[in-house]
Amino acid sequence: MENKKHIVVVGAGFGGLQAVKKLAKDKSLHITLIDRSNHHLFQPLLYQVATAVLSPADIAIPIRSLMHRKKNVTVLMDEVTGIDKENKTILLDDKKISYDFLILAAGAKTGYFGKNDWMKYTLGLKNLLNALRIRNKILMSFEEAENHPDRSGELLKYVIIGGGPTGVELAGSIAELANSIINDDFRNIDTRKAHIVLIEAGSDLLPTFDRKLSVYAKKRLEKRNVNVKLNSRVLNIEDHKIYIKTPEGEKIITADIIIWAAGVEAVGLTNTFGLPTDRQKRLIVNRYCSFDEYPEIFAIGDISDFKDENGKALPGVSAVAMQEGRYAASAIIDKLKDKKIKPFKYLDKGSMATIGRKDAVAEVLGIKFTGFLGWIMWLLLHLFYQVGFKNKVSILITWIWSYLTFGASARLIQESLSEEEKQSLLYSLDPQKPVK
Amino acid sequence: MENKKHIVVVGAGFGGLQAVKKLAKDKSLHITLIDRSNHHLFQPLLYQVATAVLSPADIAIPIRSLMHRKKNVTVLMDEVTGIDKENKTILLDDKKISYDFLILAAGAKTGYFGKNDWMKYTLGLKNLLNALRIRNKILMSFEEAENHPDRSGELLKYVIIGGGPTGVELAGSIAELANSIINDDFRNIDTRKAHIVLIEAGSDLLPTFDRKLSVYAKKRLEKRNVNVKLNSRVLNIEDHKIYIKTPEGEKIITADIIIWAAGVEAVGLTNTFGLPTDRQKRLIVNRYCSFDEYPEIFAIGDISDFKDENGKALPGVSAVAMQEGRYAASAIIDKLKDKKIKPFKYLDKGSMATIGRKDAVAEVLGIKFTGFLGWIMWLLLHLFYQVGFKNKVSILITWIWSYLTFGASARLIQESLSEEEKQSLLYSLDPQKPVK
Repeated sequence: MENKKHIVVVGAGFGGLQAVKKLAKDKSLHITLIDRSNHHLFQPLLYQVATAVLSPADIAIPIRSLMHRKKNVTVLMDEVTGIDKENKTILLDDKKISYDFLILAAGAKTGYFGKNDWMKYTLGLKNLLNALRIRNKILMSFEEAENHPDRSGELLKYVIIGGGPTGVELAGSIAELANSIINDDFRNIDTRKAHIVLIEAGSDLLPTFDRKLSVYAKKRLEKRNVNVKLNSRVLNIEDHKIYIKTPEGEKIITADIIIWAAGVEAVGLTNTFGLPTDRQKRLIVNRYCSFDEYPEIFAIGDISDFKDENGKALPGVSAVAMQEGRYAASAIIDKLKDKKIKPFKYLDKGSMATIGRKDAVAEVLGIKFTGFLGWIMWLLLHLFYQVGFKNKVSILITWIWSYLTFGASARLIQESLSEEEKQSLLYSLDPQKPVK
Repeated sequence: MENKKHIVVVGAGFGGLQAVKKLAKDKSLHITLIDRSNHHLFQPLLYQVATAVLSPADIAIPIRSLMHRKKNVTVLMDEVTGIDKENKTILLDDKKISYDFLILAAGAKTGYFGKNDWMKYTLGLKNLLNALRIRNKILMSFEEAENHPDRSGELLKYVIIGGGPTGVELAGSIAELANSIINDDFRNIDTRKAHIVLIEAGSDLLPTFDRKLSVYAKKRLEKRNVNVKLNSRVLNIEDHKIYIKTPEGEKIITADIIIWAAGVEAVGLTNTFGLPTDRQKRLIVNRYCSFDEYPEIFAIGDISDFKDENGKALPGVSAVAMQEGRYAASAIIDKLKDKKIKPFKYLDKGSMATIGRKDAVAEVLGIKFTGFLGWIMWLLLHLFYQVGFKNKVSILITWIWSYLTFGASARLIQESLSEEEKQSLLYSLDPQKPVK
């Protein structure tokens, strides 16, 4: 590495990758990209893995294969345990790395606003393992109901908490699975009788969207047999029980499968870094995606809390992370040339969410789309943003195939395990722990 | 079901599926197909999932989607716990089903010839979970070596026990991964220095193949840096240690990753059925794939031990299972028409194994192929036998893509888990156990 400047990027999500791509073009820099997993994940499609439309490999791509031609980038699969800011050193599981600049882009995980008990009773959806777990539970509920049709009413019940894009897309996707994709597959039950409940604390679904689109989304979900409960605040969650406060009073909802899509918090030990954090453990950054005391440290994407000139926090979406990633890379390159840098400005290009096959809501550069047109916009934009070429082709085929046949091609339930298998599995599923 | 004859088929592998397909055409029959997992698995390609070339969904297809148009077939995801032969009833986890005819086709799992201790120290390869576990371990070994290049010699060592097709294909595939596919991805290590050892007790690899092909396979594997140890019998296995007896004396091999591909045994509680079994717990059947005392029960494929007219046992390959499946279905249909049935006769169409990219050995209808031609034969025959159309396209694209780019598109390591995640995972990974 001689006297090359060393930039460490933590996290290979949308933000981190954009930063590395831009930095790597400057051959006077050496970049180390650290991630705790070995793949970049296309998070916006995670719900399709959870509902058995896509396979994990369709939405994940090995970080090393994205970087193998960029010879000034070293990829490390490791976990950050701390930052020694004074010595400009980042502490990993079992070694230290010094940096000239540091970009923190580790993203978010499911957050419960401090109610960590709820984690035990609900399923989050932030990584591949989460998605596979939801998929297993949903598919198994249909199998169980086929074996015990008398209990199908209670078995085929799915409650989703949180009416943002993830909640809406999950609800729509489960409805589609039950209503059309697998309906022909069973002999003893009618899967269309599955009961899907979507709970939102606010007065609208998709609260960050234009209200017209929110109203449209609710109407279409209801047409697909989703029970949408607005103004319903979750008071408590226990084993298979949700206590909610609605305008009509307090209620208890029971369900075997409860999915939590209502909140996130920053990944990792952000609150031990000695940097300012908010309630969701996100790093509060200045207008330069950085810190006044440590201008060589940047935090971008879901791990950060950036307030624009009006004091409004930017949403936790991939577009923000990507723009911040490119900004941080440029800022570093400019700083190294002693150029003055300008504050970060987010350009909002729009937002979108699918409701089902041939149905989505989208707002692109101020123009609103719904129904089939919205779905086409959604499909094109998602394919356009997918990282690897192979993944694009594979997803396209899977989607076209699903569309033509109503078949979910990824409907795999992993094998059941013997006791011995379970014991050794715990060990092997944790890739941080190599066999010693 | 009125007074339709009821045929129960246990296992949706190659044998079970062929039987059901044939039986389902007779609309006077009702068929119940029971499997403990929800998918049919194309086992011959399992090693490609283990070495990150294919994704699980590429080689597995939901049983229900294969059967959804066959209205006289009911699919149950359940586990057989016993057979009440006198009352012609099969006992499942929590219910009973009576049958007029029963076809047992549950297959094989990794077997250790009674040395069940060895299971703890080795990785088997008979289902998707096994394959993902091997994949995680292999990929993680490279990640660890990149983090600790000083220990790369010990980390990048892979021992495979068993020189049959599975062992040969795994060894070749790991060699390819290390030698070309991922070699460019690392900065601190040379993955081509990985040490792959293939141990075989007999005097030849691929013992059931023509000897010319066996010799060819050994030569080619050695060219790919695989250390082939013939005439090496495993005496004992301990944690990361294998004791072998070679013509030169006893030796100890140490390795972090030990894969067991040397034996199988019948799946399930075959030894409690009150039917004759062999040393590998396989059901010893008569010349009609059945039992003299219980001619309404058939056992086919890897769960059975069938000896031909020369007393030679048929090999545990898909071709045997498929032919036996069709035979059993015909036999049942003939018996219902009071026709006399003939003994089963296996028609051996050949065998094959890949050694690497563009290299395989094959013997088809007596003609031997090696190298590129063998590989083309292998590729065509495997695609031809894949069950679902979508899978064929997906595999073809993946293969062509891998071939053009030397990239393994399925190189995903599942996320590392927090303690809480681990606890809830155990529960969710076992699809036999629904949330109550």
